[in-house]
Amino acid sequence: MNPTCSIILIGDEILSGRTKDENLNYIACEMVKIGIRLQEVRVILDDENAIIETVNALRKKYTYVFTTGGIGPTHDDITMQSIAKAFKVGTYKDEKIVKQFKQSYGETISEATFKMAEFPIGAELIPNTVTTAPGFKMENVFVMAGIPKVMQIMLKEVLPYLKHGKIVKSKHVDILAGESTISLGFEKIQNKYAGKVSLGSYPFKKDDKYCTSLVLRSDDEELLNSAFNDVKNMLSDLSIIAI
Amino acid sequence: MNPTCSIILIGDEILSGRTKDENLNYIACEMVKIGIRLQEVRVILDDENAIIETVNALRKKYTYVFTTGGIGPTHDDITMQSIAKAFKVGTYKDEKIVKQFKQSYGETISEATFKMAEFPIGAELIPNTVTTAPGFKMENVFVMAGIPKVMQIMLKEVLPYLKHGKIVKSKHVDILAGESTISLGFEKIQNKYAGKVSLGSYPFKKDDKYCTSLVLRSDDEELLNSAFNDVKNMLSDLSIIAI
Repeated sequence: MNPTCSIILIGDEILSGRTKDENLNYIACEMVKIGIRLQEVRVILDDENAIIETVNALRKKYTYVFTTGGIGPTHDDITMQSIAKAFKVGTYKDEKIVKQFKQSYGETISEATFKMAEFPIGAELIPNTVTTAPGFKMENVFVMAGIPKVMQIMLKEVLPYLKHGKIVKSKHVDILAGESTISLGFEKIQNKYAGKVSLGSYPFKKDDKYCTSLVLRSDDEELLNSAFNDVKNMLSDLSIIAI
Repeated sequence: MNPTCSIILIGDEILSGRTKDENLNYIACEMVKIGIRLQEVRVILDDENAIIETVNALRKKYTYVFTTGGIGPTHDDITMQSIAKAFKVGTYKDEKIVKQFKQSYGETISEATFKMAEFPIGAELIPNTVTTAPGFKMENVFVMAGIPKVMQIMLKEVLPYLKHGKIVKSKHVDILAGESTISLGFEKIQNKYAGKVSLGSYPFKKDDKYCTSLVLRSDDEELLNSAFNDVKNMLSDLSIIAI
């Protein structure tokens, strides 16, 4: 079985439209590279109940859960405490991190900074070489920062510890034709390779003309190539031009 | 009570990293304009069970549910049938839409196009002036296209029928200081206006310096202004520079 995962994007600012999320696509692309299947993403408010419910629902369902957002030093950063409650554990202040903060920012740093040195009991820390405030892991849940640059650094630390799955490869061809023109033939090919190769079609416009991107995905390269040949033959039979 | 909503983004291509979603942020910003509170977003696979479960969970929880994606003419477009199953109704072919398709594309159009003229029994159609294939509404669930341009046209049709809420206004100030420096004072102001004004802080970097955006949101303009004054006084007390 290939490992699966889900992402929880935590933050009022995404739901209010203030911030355009960049983390979903970044994590999705990293998971493809190591064969982990991203099955679901949820975007939720900075709300304790929402975080607890969502984390507890998803950590039972998928091999890994990644959260982003809400681990800063201000009152609206409630992810750490909420994760502790989801796992029914208390929190502790990590003296090694407190020391690091003092070294990085000097002895006069604000008390609020130390909030970022608190973690659920049992957490394994995820180093952060950008701002020093770590993320953490509780069982199969990886809690990371919301700022894309910091999240990316944390994810890089985490990747070597994840189980890899069979890599899904893809092949695609863009055609100068709407989806409806290939729909029946495309479905026949999908049925031939059901469960082995997944075929998707994505319409777009180019120079005001209807085009479609045909995308085939599979972890079996031989079948992928065979299905792709079938698609090319279908296009040739229909006199459809690849662009 | 202000109306609430959630969004379901349906599509393997978002979860595989192939497509960067643009619909979340667009819908979020439109909802802010009419005072509807976006509470949650889920991104799910083109999978019948996932669609049925998610639609049924969210339509009971929120005033409105918006879905995007999966209503095209190919085999991987399964949103319409899945929504019909979620509502436990059959489907029908809309002869008016069939006629429109024939007028738009000629009598020789592919049989597959007519898949887009099928709807759950009881659906109200959402016109689509771009490609003529409509979206539809089932009770409080609005089913729209995944292509941003088409989705936006459909949402425009839908907006006049939605209940409006009290508009949440926001004020913000960007400061040349990290979050920790304002954390304690900022929290005090949050506590003073608890439940009335929500205060959020979002760190960013500018010219390699730590900055923070302080954002205040409320549907009560007087309280919003008062809280914003408190924030400005706090910044002045701390000798923090607004940028």
